Amino acid sequence: MPELRKDPVIGRWVIIATERGKRPMDFHPDPVTDDAGFCPFCEGHEDKTPPEILAFRDNHQAANSPGWNVRVVPNKFPALRIEGDMGKMGVGMYDKMNGIGAHEVIIETPDHLQKLHMHTPESLTKVFQAYKNRLLDLNNDQRFKYILIFKNEGRQAGASLSHPHSQLIATPVTPKRVREKLLGAKDYFNYKDRCVFCDIIREEISQEVRLIYENRGFIGFCPFASRFPFEIWIMPKRHNPDFYSMDHEEMMLLSDTFIVVMKKLAVALNRPQYNFILTTGPVRWARMGYWVTLDVDFHWHIEIMPKLTQVAGFEWGTGFYINPTIPEEAAKFLREVEA
Amino acid sequence: MPELRKDPVIGRWVIIATERGKRPMDFHPDPVTDDAGFCPFCEGHEDKTPPEILAFRDNHQAANSPGWNVRVVPNKFPALRIEGDMGKMGVGMYDKMNGIGAHEVIIETPDHLQKLHMHTPESLTKVFQAYKNRLLDLNNDQRFKYILIFKNEGRQAGASLSHPHSQLIATPVTPKRVREKLLGAKDYFNYKDRCVFCDIIREEISQEVRLIYENRGFIGFCPFASRFPFEIWIMPKRHNPDFYSMDHEEMMLLSDTFIVVMKKLAVALNRPQYNFILTTGPVRWARMGYWVTLDVDFHWHIEIMPKLTQVAGFEWGTGFYINPTIPEEAAKFLREVEA
Repeated sequence: MPELRKDPVIGRWVIIATERGKRPMDFHPDPVTDDAGFCPFCEGHEDKTPPEILAFRDNHQAANSPGWNVRVVPNKFPALRIEGDMGKMGVGMYDKMNGIGAHEVIIETPDHLQKLHMHTPESLTKVFQAYKNRLLDLNNDQRFKYILIFKNEGRQAGASLSHPHSQLIATPVTPKRVREKLLGAKDYFNYKDRCVFCDIIREEISQEVRLIYENRGFIGFCPFASRFPFEIWIMPKRHNPDFYSMDHEEMMLLSDTFIVVMKKLAVALNRPQYNFILTTGPVRWARMGYWVTLDVDFHWHIEIMPKLTQVAGFEWGTGFYINPTIPEEAAKFLREVEA
Repeated sequence: MPELRKDPVIGRWVIIATERGKRPMDFHPDPVTDDAGFCPFCEGHEDKTPPEILAFRDNHQAANSPGWNVRVVPNKFPALRIEGDMGKMGVGMYDKMNGIGAHEVIIETPDHLQKLHMHTPESLTKVFQAYKNRLLDLNNDQRFKYILIFKNEGRQAGASLSHPHSQLIATPVTPKRVREKLLGAKDYFNYKDRCVFCDIIREEISQEVRLIYENRGFIGFCPFASRFPFEIWIMPKRHNPDFYSMDHEEMMLLSDTFIVVMKKLAVALNRPQYNFILTTGPVRWARMGYWVTLDVDFHWHIEIMPKLTQVAGFEWGTGFYINPTIPEEAAKFLREVEA
């Protein structure tokens, strides 16, 4: 009998196919391929991107020159523009506003072939430090309500360049799915006086069946109501709404978790294409010298969604997901895989 | 400057790329292909599907024999099972229930190659009549809350067989996106004492810029806050929550609209892969001899989503869509294309 499972945060029901469930060997995804030819993100091609916003360099080389570890540049073809005012207005019965926002590219490494799972904790921590710096900086812009950080790996996941990079989009509205999460967490908190994500962490550690990896600071697991085969969430054990409030030690623990989980995924599914999304608390403007601390009921986390199935439009339109792989079996497989 | 536009029903904001907007010739989608080899849905292969639930035959041939126009069969690999009870229960902090429901296949034609846009209004009306009959029948099952009808055309849109067919899934919960629409329509109605879909129809007819086709009973248009390039909605002009309350004349007008719009899409984009979703009112059980008429604020409609872009995971995760084609330009193109 298939099972219907409910996501405890946003209340989405998912169909889990418990019979004839698909195992890793049943998927034949197109692995990530590396495009040949000229790459504007490679070291030495710094003049092929817009001037950098941020870069980490060990030896204080000049901006927009080689020698960097991580480099953040504006997206050359931004979905939103940084200059201008909001221009909110009605059009007949409809509402629109100017596409104001930031759209940045975080180039994770100068090495064209260094995928996320090939990082050391030290080098990956620099990527997360870049996220943190950009989040803190963009928090000062009062036009923005939310900052999304995400990664598309592979063409089928939406990447147009294969050089390892993630993206950041700051928006003047809160994206709908993010708002649902914030509200879901708030509702749960109001009802239980506990954080729903903290409860999930306790539940997953105690049930064990969906756990993939755990260290002092983080857990990686397949969520109970996974939408996709081998979907993985990474959560900090410390209750903390905002990604940017992590210190270096916590980031090292995050990097450790991330690398282990991504290595397992790469081995189990032959370097699948994937997306990840970092959901942190909404923008808090640094007004009047202090940070407005709303939404303390939220708890930042990362969702990793391997691209193994091809069922897009229907799920997009209805929010009704059919997952052919039992999350407990996916987690068991990933726990046991050598990586 | 890109534009942010808000969907008036569910409040989803979409980024519309107004500069360098993609025109039809910029897309190079893989067209729908016809698989060769054995097809279980073709006429003469009736024994290769589970026994039929419904079929229309002109000459009263026996069930599960050739001679049909439209044929409805259970899905051989159903996502949900028709037999059993709900079995609602908790698992630690989580909630689940048995995967009870119906999963049926509507085989739209005995002809393997007759795509939707190749129908006559008369033959397409038989497909819609089959939808209506199945909706009315499944309305009697008190375990079901919602009935989804949808079509995946092409492998990238999730179809595993190319013979023209749509699908029906009856669920014991209301899918999240459907619930958002029902609630959005209700909120608007409570606020304005008008139906949001009726207002959209009036707005689109008066603004004209997003209109593709109109007849006495229906309009086909690109919605103001289109998520996808060449997204098309079809709406009945008559305020009516339920698809199944259409009479034959109205179905002929729907067929006319549908065929014109699908022909234009096939010509403009070289038979693109697509999904469509029919959103009708929720199940009303025929209890105590009368129909419970809740949700009179709803207005059934069809959404057609061509599969032209590859940006799945991020949009799935955030609900934040970037549409590279201005809806007004898509509509203009479709209005003008000869079909």
